[in-house]
Amino acid sequence: MAGNSIGQHFRVTTFGESHGLALGCIVDGCPPGIELSEADLQGDLDRRRPGTSRYTTARREPDQVKILSGVFEGRTTGTSIGLLIENTDQRSKDYSEISQLFRPGHADYTYHQKYGTRDYRGGGRSSARETAMRVAAGAIAKKYLRQHGIEIVGYLSQMGDIAIETVDESQISQNPFFCPDASKVEAFDALIRDLKKQGDSIGAKVTVVARGVPVGLGEPVFDRLDAELAHSLMSINAVKGVEIGDGFDVVAQKGSEHRDALTPEGFASNHAGGILGGISSGQDIVAHLALKPTSSITVPGPTININGEPAEVITRGRHDPCVGIRAVPIAEAMLAITLMDHLLRHRGQNLEVHTQTPKI
Amino acid sequence: MAGNSIGQHFRVTTFGESHGLALGCIVDGCPPGIELSEADLQGDLDRRRPGTSRYTTARREPDQVKILSGVFEGRTTGTSIGLLIENTDQRSKDYSEISQLFRPGHADYTYHQKYGTRDYRGGGRSSARETAMRVAAGAIAKKYLRQHGIEIVGYLSQMGDIAIETVDESQISQNPFFCPDASKVEAFDALIRDLKKQGDSIGAKVTVVARGVPVGLGEPVFDRLDAELAHSLMSINAVKGVEIGDGFDVVAQKGSEHRDALTPEGFASNHAGGILGGISSGQDIVAHLALKPTSSITVPGPTININGEPAEVITRGRHDPCVGIRAVPIAEAMLAITLMDHLLRHRGQNLEVHTQTPKI
Amino acid sequence: MAGNSIGQHFRVTTFGESHGLALGCIVDGCPPGIELSEADLQGDLDRRRPGTSRYTTARREPDQVKILSGVFEGRTTGTSIGLLIENTDQRSKDYSEISQLFRPGHADYTYHQKYGTRDYRGGGRSSARETAMRVAAGAIAKKYLRQHGIEIVGYLSQMGDIAIETVDESQISQNPFFCPDASKVEAFDALIRDLKKQGDSIGAKVTVVARGVPVGLGEPVFDRLDAELAHSLMSINAVKGVEIGDGFDVVAQKGSEHRDALTPEGFASNHAGGILGGISSGQDIVAHLALKPTSSITVPGPTININGEPAEVITRGRHDPCVGIRAVPIAEAMLAITLMDHLLRHRGQNLEVHTQTPKI
Amino acid sequence: MAGNSIGQHFRVTTFGESHGLALGCIVDGCPPGIELSEADLQGDLDRRRPGTSRYTTARREPDQVKILSGVFEGRTTGTSIGLLIENTDQRSKDYSEISQLFRPGHADYTYHQKYGTRDYRGGGRSSARETAMRVAAGAIAKKYLRQHGIEIVGYLSQMGDIAIETVDESQISQNPFFCPDASKVEAFDALIRDLKKQGDSIGAKVTVVARGVPVGLGEPVFDRLDAELAHSLMSINAVKGVEIGDGFDVVAQKGSEHRDALTPEGFASNHAGGILGGISSGQDIVAHLALKPTSSITVPGPTININGEPAEVITRGRHDPCVGIRAVPIAEAMLAITLMDHLLRHRGQNLEVHTQTPKI
Repeated sequence: MAGNSIGQHFRVTTFGESHGLALGCIVDGCPPGIELSEADLQGDLDRRRPGTSRYTTARREPDQVKILSGVFEGRTTGTSIGLLIENTDQRSKDYSEISQLFRPGHADYTYHQKYGTRDYRGGGRSSARETAMRVAAGAIAKKYLRQHGIEIVGYLSQMGDIAIETVDESQISQNPFFCPDASKVEAFDALIRDLKKQGDSIGAKVTVVARGVPVGLGEPVFDRLDAELAHSLMSINAVKGVEIGDGFDVVAQKGSEHRDALTPEGFASNHAGGILGGISSGQDIVAHLALKPTSSITVPGPTININGEPAEVITRGRHDPCVGIRAVPIAEAMLAITLMDHLLRHRGQNLEVHTQTPKI
Repeated sequence: MAGNSIGQHFRVTTFGESHGLALGCIVDGCPPGIELSEADLQGDLDRRRPGTSRYTTARREPDQVKILSGVFEGRTTGTSIGLLIENTDQRSKDYSEISQLFRPGHADYTYHQKYGTRDYRGGGRSSARETAMRVAAGAIAKKYLRQHGIEIVGYLSQMGDIAIETVDESQISQNPFFCPDASKVEAFDALIRDLKKQGDSIGAKVTVVARGVPVGLGEPVFDRLDAELAHSLMSINAVKGVEIGDGFDVVAQKGSEHRDALTPEGFASNHAGGILGGISSGQDIVAHLALKPTSSITVPGPTININGEPAEVITRGRHDPCVGIRAVPIAEAMLAITLMDHLLRHRGQNLEVHTQTPKI
Repeated sequence: MAGNSIGQHFRVTTFGESHGLALGCIVDGCPPGIELSEADLQGDLDRRRPGTSRYTTARREPDQVKILSGVFEGRTTGTSIGLLIENTDQRSKDYSEISQLFRPGHADYTYHQKYGTRDYRGGGRSSARETAMRVAAGAIAKKYLRQHGIEIVGYLSQMGDIAIETVDESQISQNPFFCPDASKVEAFDALIRDLKKQGDSIGAKVTVVARGVPVGLGEPVFDRLDAELAHSLMSINAVKGVEIGDGFDVVAQKGSEHRDALTPEGFASNHAGGILGGISSGQDIVAHLALKPTSSITVPGPTININGEPAEVITRGRHDPCVGIRAVPIAEAMLAITLMDHLLRHRGQNLEVHTQTPKI
Repeated sequence: MAGNSIGQHFRVTTFGESHGLALGCIVDGCPPGIELSEADLQGDLDRRRPGTSRYTTARREPDQVKILSGVFEGRTTGTSIGLLIENTDQRSKDYSEISQLFRPGHADYTYHQKYGTRDYRGGGRSSARETAMRVAAGAIAKKYLRQHGIEIVGYLSQMGDIAIETVDESQISQNPFFCPDASKVEAFDALIRDLKKQGDSIGAKVTVVARGVPVGLGEPVFDRLDAELAHSLMSINAVKGVEIGDGFDVVAQKGSEHRDALTPEGFASNHAGGILGGISSGQDIVAHLALKPTSSITVPGPTININGEPAEVITRGRHDPCVGIRAVPIAEAMLAITLMDHLLRHRGQNLEVHTQTPKI
């Protein structure tokens, strides 16, 4: 299998290059009877879209998604859903000069070695432009999950050295950083402006949370919910780390402090991030992602060309100083896709879905 | 799919409970012609085995693996390999008292809710005993990879607050902690002794490295090598975080410091951990895992029973104060399984394998 | 998994309804470096297309396929290939009257029961229009196989009671029936004209052959080449039977007559149809398909409506009296897809491909 | 994927060679709470077992199956079920003389070419002995289906030229041929005796039927129920053809006679064999299989050795003159496995199961 699919029961397969004719995907396994129109997908696509503010790339793509199949008279039919976004602003000339270079930190070198060829226009298939289709497919999953009482929320929890200190979810949509801590917006803004001046970029940490998840999702032993979440979140461009719950903080914890006590009223804490033994516990599922600083910067750097000769590279074009910002809706989408897949997998074993966490 | 398999081309499917008759697995997709005997598997099984020192559980399992099929006249035949380990030291009575309780931090509650039933003897299917089969299957992958010039190394890089400072791989087998820094062994030893006195446990960080990996392994866009590694490593019991290369440190890095320069002599650094765009770069693949402190401790803790009534739990039995130690050979096995899978997937696209990293 | 994909290594996933906006598919796993343009696909699409003669339906679809991704500078890149055909001649009004009826012999009833809803326009997803994408994807496989010395040929071997008696492959493209026996063309023609007058339809038998197949393709024990061929051929609309080699004739054969003798010059006969123990023998692979007469006929028939009340149905519209004719390029496509998948699977086990059948 | 698994949701993976230490399988995806013991599996294993009468091979294997995991306190737990049968009567010496020969009609040649090696003892992995595990796994599926109102019946419908004329299911267990037509038993008996004298073998036709199947099972478009049945039935050793419903008879049928009319009381006929558009219609599912005459006969035949030199082969040992007889329980098992898989897949899309065919 060549790897352009994710999910078993709710399965998303994508195609498309950064500067090709179009991006598309097929969503297979969506149950019938769900109201669905392009408008349901466009909201998240607009949140992910570049060019919406000065903090992200200036590339302008309307990113208008079309539903080509699988929906009849406004509702899903149970058959495969074809989605398409045409590329309208390709400006291939921006990229021609780097066709002979391997940009450091990019996939140019590895694609070239793997395939003996590569579509160098804007990174081709390795471009994060591909994630537009994940966001579109994820919007279907989000809608389905919402109908089953599950809400997905994502936000930026750190940029460079600046970490948020409080989470007020009502703030997330009030600033261009998906930042839930209003007191940090100014510092984020200053950091981005500095980076633009320097022609440099910065890493980020993103947090995604799922609420209202039934107890019991996840399959022992390899397809644990946390393992599959790690897969889907790590598959996002630029992600270098994934944590569930306390993540790497557990290294210094003792068992007596880490384990979440069960009480007749529910769990007393959530160090586990909502997953025990690979199976959802009914608590909030909490995951963190580390996103590397983009390598597309105007700070010149040494590299080699395809003949192995030394060269210097400056990545011109329209690039985000912090790709982590736009990763928020992408991470939400991947979380939604994985949860929906597991909700259906659970049902596919003829198991009851405890949509209301049972009183314990 | 119910989740007891991992890998696409090199596929491992396991069965078995902690206190059942036997554990077993089927390894499908192993190429023919590889010399293989039980002795090839037993070494890693012994490294993982409990009871080998006072630092790990006192449970004594000879863990003798039998090869039941797929090997003829000392070599693999290309057909499925059946492996079996009989459980000889089950002592089920140790566990009977907790059959009515949900141990906090364990999968008791989530299994019970998912399936409506559970094998409570020693955690049943959720026990780390299952990982013995991963280690056995991983030993096959390790042997195959070694024949292709790929070496796997794992070690404990942190326990509690004590982090290693140097890596001398020759030290790893010289102490019971898989610790590559001889100067930390005494501190690890003191920490474990303290914990035993307290009846408590501690988290750990494990590092695994693969050397000699060809350029080009990994499939865009969902089955990236890092995404599949995250899946396989996160599927190990107690793992709460996975990092590739610099991992969460990238959050505070700038693009100009993170991106690894290419030079005619090779890469100048390895912040990426050997993977760019989801595809191996020919550099060392480096991954870190966070393992939570085991919840099987004798410190009493509040919980509930299966009727939702409050109760107190003390986990008696034979348990490691630091499950992270024994996770080293397990993490090596999972890394080996995933790499071998991707080596075959790469070939399955009729792509050349650059076993010698091309001079760049 | 919802079932819109076929193949493991060379994987085709389709979407699209008969009267939706477009049909499409994603071809995943195609090796890089293969010259590919729309022209390579259009030939087979034209062979399958309705409206090319009076023998098939009068519906006129240019069936112009577009390659949306995966090809750069005229060659495949190794990434997923998106294909699209827009529906231009939909005439939905033809079908509105049957929205309340279950047409006998069609999937109307079963889709309605399965999904609680259905796209009734022209059969929606159950229409053979979907096979256009199979033919497009199959053309990629055919091109790849041809480069590896494998040729695919298909023909109509029987229509109603009229069976061919000789096979002259040069005749196949000389008549609208894909008939390799020129002496039967007139009889086929007369039969079709009769059926049109009666408003009835007829069944057919199609034969597909692959030449130059290397020895060794096919995976024991469930994914045998014959088993996977049976899957892919039976998945074609209207197919009710699949035979490999002598097929149902083996029931009356003795072992001494069936088994194909091996001689130093090769096999002495091919009762097996080129597959032994599920693995290709290097001989021609021969398969036969039984296609039922289409149920879309103007002979009135009793049925029920969606309320379970008796009704009468006459299927108006533009329909083939013998759907078996157009099934020839579809069956070729499915054979090609399955063979290419197995060629890559074989390689993915690090096995040699004997493109030249070894001298035996 | 190397092919030793079948099914998506209810997934069976097997291992084991004819003369290895043991055969085994893992059944993944079985819902929890089903009463299960070895006795549930042994009945069908005994029906398949050789040596039960003079009509089948004299090899004596008690074929005692052990359940190693996945069952606790008499019920399935939802985790993977490990099954094992030890080989106790291996007599490897019988086969040593053919280690250098390719037996015509067997998989010796194709395995040798594929893998460059083979376990020649009794055919190794290509032996029908492997099907014991299918029968064991199928017995689990049968039990589950029975609890959902689905019954599976299989019988021999033809041997050589002798076809049954009536079906009285109560007769099937009354004779060693699984023959439902008592009037043919004597003729079958005479035929087998003749073949034994001649040292020859004969083909057979087997019919399997599923009753009480809910409407709606099967996934468009590639994983149709008929396509997956064709896969699973064709994967049985010696099968060369599969038919659904009228099968190859449809070639000569007209649409007006083939299509099954729907009436308010149900379907008026069942030419379709219970599947329309790849989805079950609620009628009986009917499939036929063609099994070739075994090539293990004592009639001498020309062949070549592994050096390509001419040789003569006589297959001594203990072999059935008609392998089709013992194929009856195997075909039932494969039908059960595929139906159970689709029952769970259907549920996994959050679709209702109409266990009672809705009144139409």
